[in-house]
Amino acid sequence: MDADEFRRLWNEIEPVGRAESGGYLRYSWTEPDLDLRTWFHTQSKRRGLRYEEDRNGNLYAWWDPEKEQVVDPDAPHPHGAVLTGSHFDSVPHGGAYDGPLGIVSGFLAVDQLRADGAIPKRAIGVAAFTEEEGGRFGVPCLGSRLMAGVIDPDRARMLTDPDGVTLAEAMSSAGAEPDLLGPDPERLERLAAFIELHIEQGRTLDGSESPVAVASAIWPHGRWRVTFTGEADHAGTTRLPDRRDPMLTFAFAVLAARKEARLAGGVATIGRVEVEPNATNAIASQVTAWLDARAPDDAVLGEILTGFESKVSERAGRDGTSVAIEAESETPIVEFDASLRDRIAAILGGAPVLPTAAGHDAGVLSAHVPTAMLFVRNPTGVSHAPGEAASDADCAGGVDALAAVLRDLAC
Amino acid sequence: MDADEFRRLWNEIEPVGRAESGGYLRYSWTEPDLDLRTWFHTQSKRRGLRYEEDRNGNLYAWWDPEKEQVVDPDAPHPHGAVLTGSHFDSVPHGGAYDGPLGIVSGFLAVDQLRADGAIPKRAIGVAAFTEEEGGRFGVPCLGSRLMAGVIDPDRARMLTDPDGVTLAEAMSSAGAEPDLLGPDPERLERLAAFIELHIEQGRTLDGSESPVAVASAIWPHGRWRVTFTGEADHAGTTRLPDRRDPMLTFAFAVLAARKEARLAGGVATIGRVEVEPNATNAIASQVTAWLDARAPDDAVLGEILTGFESKVSERAGRDGTSVAIEAESETPIVEFDASLRDRIAAILGGAPVLPTAAGHDAGVLSAHVPTAMLFVRNPTGVSHAPGEAASDADCAGGVDALAAVLRDLAC
Repeated sequence: MDADEFRRLWNEIEPVGRAESGGYLRYSWTEPDLDLRTWFHTQSKRRGLRYEEDRNGNLYAWWDPEKEQVVDPDAPHPHGAVLTGSHFDSVPHGGAYDGPLGIVSGFLAVDQLRADGAIPKRAIGVAAFTEEEGGRFGVPCLGSRLMAGVIDPDRARMLTDPDGVTLAEAMSSAGAEPDLLGPDPERLERLAAFIELHIEQGRTLDGSESPVAVASAIWPHGRWRVTFTGEADHAGTTRLPDRRDPMLTFAFAVLAARKEARLAGGVATIGRVEVEPNATNAIASQVTAWLDARAPDDAVLGEILTGFESKVSERAGRDGTSVAIEAESETPIVEFDASLRDRIAAILGGAPVLPTAAGHDAGVLSAHVPTAMLFVRNPTGVSHAPGEAASDADCAGGVDALAAVLRDLAC
Repeated sequence: MDADEFRRLWNEIEPVGRAESGGYLRYSWTEPDLDLRTWFHTQSKRRGLRYEEDRNGNLYAWWDPEKEQVVDPDAPHPHGAVLTGSHFDSVPHGGAYDGPLGIVSGFLAVDQLRADGAIPKRAIGVAAFTEEEGGRFGVPCLGSRLMAGVIDPDRARMLTDPDGVTLAEAMSSAGAEPDLLGPDPERLERLAAFIELHIEQGRTLDGSESPVAVASAIWPHGRWRVTFTGEADHAGTTRLPDRRDPMLTFAFAVLAARKEARLAGGVATIGRVEVEPNATNAIASQVTAWLDARAPDDAVLGEILTGFESKVSERAGRDGTSVAIEAESETPIVEFDASLRDRIAAILGGAPVLPTAAGHDAGVLSAHVPTAMLFVRNPTGVSHAPGEAASDADCAGGVDALAAVLRDLAC
């Protein structure tokens, strides 16, 4: 595909939800997200694809085969569809490509297959999953988790955004039907494969021959809410030995998380903090922080958590504070389908095979459907921030790769 | 004074601005503050006092002498007034007594002097200063600083609250005139003395014979805004050595502030923090924290700051982040007028004399007017938090002490 052709379609969504920072505020069910959902519908109509919204708010544009054909009667899913796609929503001030690149590339891959005269034997679908980042309601991959039945729909409906708006309220305001939320096993059974194309989140492909890589696995990862409780008091008049200052325990925990991750060989980050009462001249009464930790395998992740908990509890004892650690999400290692991965690497002429430390809808779906991921080169390696980057030429290369994979699997 | 008599007046303001936490949200120029200003006006009228609002929004209720009398022709301020009072505004979820106790006690002291048949030779005033805590607009003692000409009125008008509302806008919305803000030297010249009664912020009087103490000095203190800048990136996919995570430098700074204060013999606190973008799965791009530091003398305070700056800068170098430290307010030591202090201690039968680490309007006025402070026992020692406490009997004792001081100085 020509880089300009990629750029033309990309330009249609690039301004939507862009903040002054250059980053994006595309939270699910807000105005920018609704604009992108409308855009998805328009793209679907423009191509004569069959538009569909599932019970969980995920969108599909289907290129159905003209007549039903058995691709390989001995294979599983002889009639199953091949789905590609990703998500529109962003983290606060996230990059342009994380999510939308997979959707735009899906539509362009369909265009390319049609331009080449390909005739699908299986349905080919482009999907947009809702709330992948958890940027508004806190649970990542919410749309795919609901579909896979790994989150209770009652719990999902009651998730709140930072303004206290529930998912149910946000969906209703947008004209969607939160009552329908829930598992969708029939839909999963109709899929023969899911291929998610995504911007690379790291710099491994920078300087490589190939602008595209294939995923091997998603590192096990999780989020833990850590609540440090002490006692509010006057910052000037309270003697140091009389204080029960949770900010000290929290500060120790930030450094402990980093150290435990370094020693064990994973990563750990505290990037979100809330302080009560958050006043300059008052010792904090409570600090709430969110720990994000990831590792190459479940044992290493467990080691980081165990080390963190024991060091921080010991420190809390010395500070006269208390600490409560609660898992908000825990995802074990995801090994993508090995035969699909090898087949794709071969189609792409021996593309590099990389693990990723980021969660994706592909990780959720891989428990039910043979799943693979393609990564498009990101020369800065920056992710979840405005500095995330990709050249139009590499994005066009990503479309070529995705079209080749869809052709191989569905035509 | 009878404890019940104190309680009756106290009950009138106790519910105003009280949050579910049991603490108070009495920010200047908000609804609770306006209710308290109205209450002040009502108290003034009820007693036939002359009500006055100065150009900076500070309130006064004056008991003028029936005819002008020269108290002591050789003393300075032969006609000067004696002012008492404090402030209504609170820190977020602050205690009930910090501020309002000084105003309520002022009205009750006037009642007591009148009941005793005292006849003032000087005017006696009760004052309510605005924005003493800096809880809304960030600059403590704003009303008294404006009056004393130690803050530029243009800067004051442009101070913003956390919602971006300027002081000028907040005053205008409340029907006040921000254009009038500025120094008021004539008003200061008319004062012979200022006596601020305040809840004790510590536990020195707990177990003492006396429910009331006299202040010796206010520790030098200051607030510094510390901005830690790094680079936002993905919390999962960014390798630890590639990170420039300002949360690490911030965490180190919290612990460094405490350590430097402990070694030097002062106190230092970080109780307010803001994080950008504050997302669970993004490394922070920026952390802003406010350092509050106080010490028995200016040299010790300087030592804490110097140590903090050098340790934190060194750490920022290792983290690949940058640190900017900007003073928001710096107040040198305030030694209250020694002869006034000794005179008051004698009137009160040898009341304890204590320093305080908290800033007060009395500290600002002491540069212009002979000034003293009385502290009323706080059995918990808690300050700037709901646990702050005083018995009605001790508060009544505070009124007795204040009335005795006013009688001595003005009658």
